[in-house]
Amino acid sequence: MEVNGRHYRTVWMEANAVMMIDQSRLPYEFKIYECRDYIQTSQAIKTMIIRGAGAIGAAAGYAMAQAFLVDENLSRAADYIRSMRPTAQNLFYAVNKVLQAKDKQKALEIAESIADEDADFCERIGNHGEALMQDGCRILTHCNAGWLAFVDWGSALSPAYKAKRAGKNVFVFVDETRPRCQGAKLTAFELAGEKIPHVVIADNAAGYYMKKGEVDLVITGSDRIAANGDVANKIGTYEKAVLAKENNIPFYVAAPSTTIDFDCPDGDQIPIEARDEDEVLMMVGLDESKKISKIQLTSGLSHAKNPAFDVTPAKYVTGIITEEGIFAPGDIKKLMKKNRHAR
Amino acid sequence: MEVNGRHYRTVWMEANAVMMIDQSRLPYEFKIYECRDYIQTSQAIKTMIIRGAGAIGAAAGYAMAQAFLVDENLSRAADYIRSMRPTAQNLFYAVNKVLQAKDKQKALEIAESIADEDADFCERIGNHGEALMQDGCRILTHCNAGWLAFVDWGSALSPAYKAKRAGKNVFVFVDETRPRCQGAKLTAFELAGEKIPHVVIADNAAGYYMKKGEVDLVITGSDRIAANGDVANKIGTYEKAVLAKENNIPFYVAAPSTTIDFDCPDGDQIPIEARDEDEVLMMVGLDESKKISKIQLTSGLSHAKNPAFDVTPAKYVTGIITEEGIFAPGDIKKLMKKNRHAR
Repeated sequence: MEVNGRHYRTVWMEANAVMMIDQSRLPYEFKIYECRDYIQTSQAIKTMIIRGAGAIGAAAGYAMAQAFLVDENLSRAADYIRSMRPTAQNLFYAVNKVLQAKDKQKALEIAESIADEDADFCERIGNHGEALMQDGCRILTHCNAGWLAFVDWGSALSPAYKAKRAGKNVFVFVDETRPRCQGAKLTAFELAGEKIPHVVIADNAAGYYMKKGEVDLVITGSDRIAANGDVANKIGTYEKAVLAKENNIPFYVAAPSTTIDFDCPDGDQIPIEARDEDEVLMMVGLDESKKISKIQLTSGLSHAKNPAFDVTPAKYVTGIITEEGIFAPGDIKKLMKKNRHAR
Repeated sequence: MEVNGRHYRTVWMEANAVMMIDQSRLPYEFKIYECRDYIQTSQAIKTMIIRGAGAIGAAAGYAMAQAFLVDENLSRAADYIRSMRPTAQNLFYAVNKVLQAKDKQKALEIAESIADEDADFCERIGNHGEALMQDGCRILTHCNAGWLAFVDWGSALSPAYKAKRAGKNVFVFVDETRPRCQGAKLTAFELAGEKIPHVVIADNAAGYYMKKGEVDLVITGSDRIAANGDVANKIGTYEKAVLAKENNIPFYVAAPSTTIDFDCPDGDQIPIEARDEDEVLMMVGLDESKKISKIQLTSGLSHAKNPAFDVTPAKYVTGIITEEGIFAPGDIKKLMKKNRHAR
């Protein structure tokens, strides 16, 4: 998508370096971060300089290609990259795919094809999802599953971008998405860039607006979908899904088929990443001198727990929007053949 | 309760001044804020130097007494004080009660009796609520309805304080409670002071722990309860109530009967305060030099909406813990006679 009048992907390769938009500095500074080897690229995934299902996948694919380039022990490199974010299915998908390359050139090609595929799948998700949006539609989304979370277009936000281009009016309630506030920081930044009317709300207010009848549709992304249609996504997604059901609001998950883990029978088998308590106890933003800084919220006497994801059981999910169309959660197995073949 | 080895109430009078713990500086600094007239006391309510149902009520009663002391136009003073926080029932209760005083001395006495009654009612809430807590009980609470939100003891936390004194082990999940983080800042501070094991979580994680079976009981406070048992409380309470019901977890509201508005037939009639968007877009905490400062979360290009409260319909409420005992939401009308008489 466009930033300052130029088209960007979130991640790409230049010579042997992996280049990425530094999402830890957004929305305050737009900077490109350079990773010279697969270790640096892996660390950028771990520290969330790059984050989001598809963007992590593409970066992981490029990291594997970097490992090929320096004749690294490939199975060790693959294990290392896989250990960065345990929940993200696209990461495993990409590492496994590049690992099958026969040589350096092929590894680079496969990594590039993963990024291209991600951008293409997300654009197609937008086309399918756009059909769900009436003119005047009011959408609620959680976390950031926009173009910054993928290589381009995004999953949950792609339908809104397509609807906007088709001349429809859409309005987005943006859950700020504590603890890291990817909603307030990234989704709001994306929507402002695309000139889509939106408002940031505390995660606590999502239910309030649903109950008031001001939300027509909830769409989120996903970090891993189990074979039975259970969906792992950013912590809080389960809460919004339960509230949507309670208020008879359709709850959609938008994700490329590469997010589906057919080897995982149900959501209970999805490992949930526990992240540092400081993400809850501290907060990053711009201080009064416009410097990016961190403040401490609590007294210092209390600890926090910080599960990064939760699992929304399939029964709360109205449909899963993929590049192949919209599926009931129980029907995603139909995508298995295609997905297996791609591996 | 005790701070630094000394017993404090949240608000009290010294000569003609209203003294209060400055909650806008907690948990970083413990300071007493002095209000010399009813305008200053009212502004302290509006700017949330003092906040919480019972504490607002007591402060409003003292503010009315201050208006008596300077021979202010009493109906104008009452209107002014009432306009500070539109949702808080205890504020209206206290203003109306002091307004009936025949002279300055009586006004002071009534204001004092409101504060004493609040502390007494909260202690009795603790005694009734403690019966709900088994040894090892894991409680989830939202916002701060501890002693800082009342004159002493608190409502939602009072049962935990009583359970602790009775030798029971209790554990508390503390919703941080965005946007103002009264959970992370005040509830965690209180629990640390009382040496009750607890952990701060993002509001988004409450559902995760409920679904995992790690929450035995949810208890929140309330800012106003309608005659039918619908409960207005901090934004996000409705979300937690729906999630508790979905996971078969009892959901209790703890509040003195002074929080019940018998003139209000149901929750739809409760006015919901819309607060400044900066409470969502900005965040206050301790910076690296240990100064209280404010950071900006978003790009500056997006707006926020900030409803301060929501209404939880009675059907999600297991029981309302009052000074008179625990009532089903449909049974609180039994308290009307007593409450009316008190007016």
